[in-house]
Amino acid sequence: MSEPQLAPTRRQLLGMIGTVAGASAMYQAMAMLGVAHASPYTGPVRLEGDPQGATVLVLGAGLAGMVAAMELRAAGYSVQVLEYREKAGGRCWTLRGGDRYTELGGAEQEVAFTEGNYFNPGPWRIPYHHHAVLDYCQRLGVELEPFLQDNRNAYLHSTTAFDGTPRRQREISADYRGHVAELLSKVTDQGALEQMVSAEDRALLLESLRSFGALDSEMRYQRSSSASGRRGYERAPGGGVEGEPIPNDPLDLSSVLQSRLWQHLSASDSMNTQMPMFQPRGGMDMIAQAMQREVEDLIRFNTRVVALEQDDEGVTVTFEDRRSPGSTEQLRADYCVCTLPFSVLGQVDHNLSGPLSNVIDTMHYASSIKVGLEFDRRFWEEDEQIFGGITYTDLPISMISYPSNDYFRRGSGVLLGAYSWGATSYQFNALPPEDRIARALDYGAQIHPQYRDHFTSGVAVAWHRVPWVMGCYGIWQDKAAQYQDAVAMDRRVVMAGEHLSYLPAWMEGAILSSLDAISRLHDRVVNG
Amino acid sequence: MSEPQLAPTRRQLLGMIGTVAGASAMYQAMAMLGVAHASPYTGPVRLEGDPQGATVLVLGAGLAGMVAAMELRAAGYSVQVLEYREKAGGRCWTLRGGDRYTELGGAEQEVAFTEGNYFNPGPWRIPYHHHAVLDYCQRLGVELEPFLQDNRNAYLHSTTAFDGTPRRQREISADYRGHVAELLSKVTDQGALEQMVSAEDRALLLESLRSFGALDSEMRYQRSSSASGRRGYERAPGGGVEGEPIPNDPLDLSSVLQSRLWQHLSASDSMNTQMPMFQPRGGMDMIAQAMQREVEDLIRFNTRVVALEQDDEGVTVTFEDRRSPGSTEQLRADYCVCTLPFSVLGQVDHNLSGPLSNVIDTMHYASSIKVGLEFDRRFWEEDEQIFGGITYTDLPISMISYPSNDYFRRGSGVLLGAYSWGATSYQFNALPPEDRIARALDYGAQIHPQYRDHFTSGVAVAWHRVPWVMGCYGIWQDKAAQYQDAVAMDRRVVMAGEHLSYLPAWMEGAILSSLDAISRLHDRVVNG
Repeated sequence: MSEPQLAPTRRQLLGMIGTVAGASAMYQAMAMLGVAHASPYTGPVRLEGDPQGATVLVLGAGLAGMVAAMELRAAGYSVQVLEYREKAGGRCWTLRGGDRYTELGGAEQEVAFTEGNYFNPGPWRIPYHHHAVLDYCQRLGVELEPFLQDNRNAYLHSTTAFDGTPRRQREISADYRGHVAELLSKVTDQGALEQMVSAEDRALLLESLRSFGALDSEMRYQRSSSASGRRGYERAPGGGVEGEPIPNDPLDLSSVLQSRLWQHLSASDSMNTQMPMFQPRGGMDMIAQAMQREVEDLIRFNTRVVALEQDDEGVTVTFEDRRSPGSTEQLRADYCVCTLPFSVLGQVDHNLSGPLSNVIDTMHYASSIKVGLEFDRRFWEEDEQIFGGITYTDLPISMISYPSNDYFRRGSGVLLGAYSWGATSYQFNALPPEDRIARALDYGAQIHPQYRDHFTSGVAVAWHRVPWVMGCYGIWQDKAAQYQDAVAMDRRVVMAGEHLSYLPAWMEGAILSSLDAISRLHDRVVNG
Repeated sequence: MSEPQLAPTRRQLLGMIGTVAGASAMYQAMAMLGVAHASPYTGPVRLEGDPQGATVLVLGAGLAGMVAAMELRAAGYSVQVLEYREKAGGRCWTLRGGDRYTELGGAEQEVAFTEGNYFNPGPWRIPYHHHAVLDYCQRLGVELEPFLQDNRNAYLHSTTAFDGTPRRQREISADYRGHVAELLSKVTDQGALEQMVSAEDRALLLESLRSFGALDSEMRYQRSSSASGRRGYERAPGGGVEGEPIPNDPLDLSSVLQSRLWQHLSASDSMNTQMPMFQPRGGMDMIAQAMQREVEDLIRFNTRVVALEQDDEGVTVTFEDRRSPGSTEQLRADYCVCTLPFSVLGQVDHNLSGPLSNVIDTMHYASSIKVGLEFDRRFWEEDEQIFGGITYTDLPISMISYPSNDYFRRGSGVLLGAYSWGATSYQFNALPPEDRIARALDYGAQIHPQYRDHFTSGVAVAWHRVPWVMGCYGIWQDKAAQYQDAVAMDRRVVMAGEHLSYLPAWMEGAILSSLDAISRLHDRVVNG
């Protein structure tokens, strides 16, 4: 009797494809079968067809604007870019010793960091799946290094839990999981679960909970080598006479729950914060600098756009040279890619359509504060063995992030000493920069008392006061209803930037938005 | 009415200490109060007092032996070291193009890797709390870079689950947690839990489970933006017209449980595999090389110890120069630090005490296989966006680890294509090296079909066949009963190495064991 002919399994199918057509075809098939995960970015944009000398004016030389300029010029367009600042990059920005920054309201800060230290007030980390950013880094030679988002030896801190004593993340992580696993294991044979889960699956569930929760052989989470193997020891394993480890005591369930420190346990679980993450070596603006090198000849710096008017033949932009206030100039082009934040565009005279104008006028920009603090000693590494990663706290600073570079170096380093948003950031925004820094120091010293002896200098960026964006990222009044109105080409003008994406505040959103916008613009030009 | 005088909280106490005595005193107080976590290694060893010209013979120039030689010479001893190999390092070993390696049985491999590529057959990663290793790296100028142990985009793979299709780790991680959280949330009001957890804590538990499991507002784990925000999307968030993400479908609980892929969910939770981890830039033997530079003048290479005899005045070691087989020489010293693995020492004539001899004779060495595979294209990065981290599988290769260096580089790279131990490794050990490599390729191609087109060369190290250790690490017959017998100084001889620690197979265990051994030896010499 012959075996029945079964449909091939996925693996058999892949094997056949591999045999017949080679591994590359097999990989294509894997992608189709859902083994590989596609991204919205599938490689360098292809703008095929001749634009026949069409001209494009790009407003803003942040990442969205520079990508548009770079790719449109490569496709045959004649491109010009207007930029408010004296350099490109927008929110992709790094501050180093000697830099000066004047915020709205006039307060000026001069950064006093030691040579080699830096601080990223804006984007500071790149997820592994932000393929467009990563691809531009590769194409433009921007060197990347790992950003250590996850550090089990960093702290979780609450002013109202454990007498304000910070706990190592591994303790809360191990204890929460252990207690949850123990609780569930105790009820798998109870009525409700018996109905939801088959007997076979209940046995597997118990086995999995033991491993997941580091439970002992009787399914308890308690002082044990298995629990300490995750949370840490009273005396760590060593060598020689006193080598034998001594376990420590887990926190009880109630203390863990009431501490609310479990709120932070998923901080490195979301797609955008899972390991691995990356950062450009030397500062985030290495990306901006690399793009600027590509399109510098197209950019007119120090210009403020005051009007944007389109008609049936083209777009006219009126702008002021910031070094000659009062007098305006005009540029005209066939098309315009506008990457100005809507917080800025809302102050420009324009004749854009009603639906788009409505979005521009109703989008508000998130408030956010970041404070960079330089210390003359890397005490977080030397005293506390914290290499990279983030401490989370309920203090208004929200977090302290440790540098993911120059590990083990003797000497100075820069912490992200505050990164708050929303209501928590308002109390900082209202203060002059030096007081924001002082406050970040006071708060942070509750976690790291070494702050007091080792602080050298700081810089505080309140995003509502950053002149070229006046906020951190765009928040929609009603994204579901408004989104297509805002991304659609408005006669000869198309909008681009992080605000026109579903990755708000991420560089990837800005680039993907720009690539989509110029693809549609190009399609219009070539195919009418 | 005045406020009652309360005992200060821990935070208040720390604040007072800080005010009075400064931040450093405060940090000391934090350590005492359990905020900081001590390690068995508290800084460079201090061997105070004059050994008055005492001589020490160190057997073995692995990390334990070299640390002993370095520190004893610094303390005033006259030190000599005998080493079997032509270079130092022992199991701290890196293979590069051009290296030749002959295993027991005579099979020789010549490594054919491209310049710049390397493979660590032994230790390959350093936990953040292995303070002794990290401190020697700093003192000796060994540059460290992050080792990305945790990668949610690497795979979990079972030949018997999901038709053999690998799943991204983030999918199993999110789905297991989501289902566990949902199950527990459904029974928090049931009898058993009601008795174990107070009403207040049950409310917190529910709130925490929603966050921990990415549950929706009705406490369900199902297709949703919150679930996809961890496990991935059908269409990832993007920019422009098609920017809106489309969630994908979680796996159901039964599929997750029956896949047994949850076994790997704690792979990066233990103290020794938590993030962050490190590796020396350029290969693990950068540590061995740095130590060798310190003590090279003390080491006699290419020597095989054949006898170790001690009497009331000293220790005599008989050895063979491997380049003049058959003829033996002798060295005599006041004391001996023996770092030979017991697998090797068991073959040496010696007059050590009965209890120690018993440990030497009953310790067996773990079996382990590692295979390094070079490919001419980094397809795991280019096609699959896997940067560092580890794929786990139930195939006999156990895992595939991706290099934590040269990310995004175009061109070749080396994978750890198999790392198995125990029973799983035996089928590899029995094969000649080229067949081990072929088998690792066959298995690995089930996960990465690109193996077939891009393999260039490999090297396979079966630790039972490594001449200078004949195994991977020491396993005790009865550690609880035997340990103190083996670490105790045996008249004028003291043992050191990973096998005499509670960190077996880790470099930290070897160093801590050595530091403890020489401290006791020194105490004997100075204080009698």
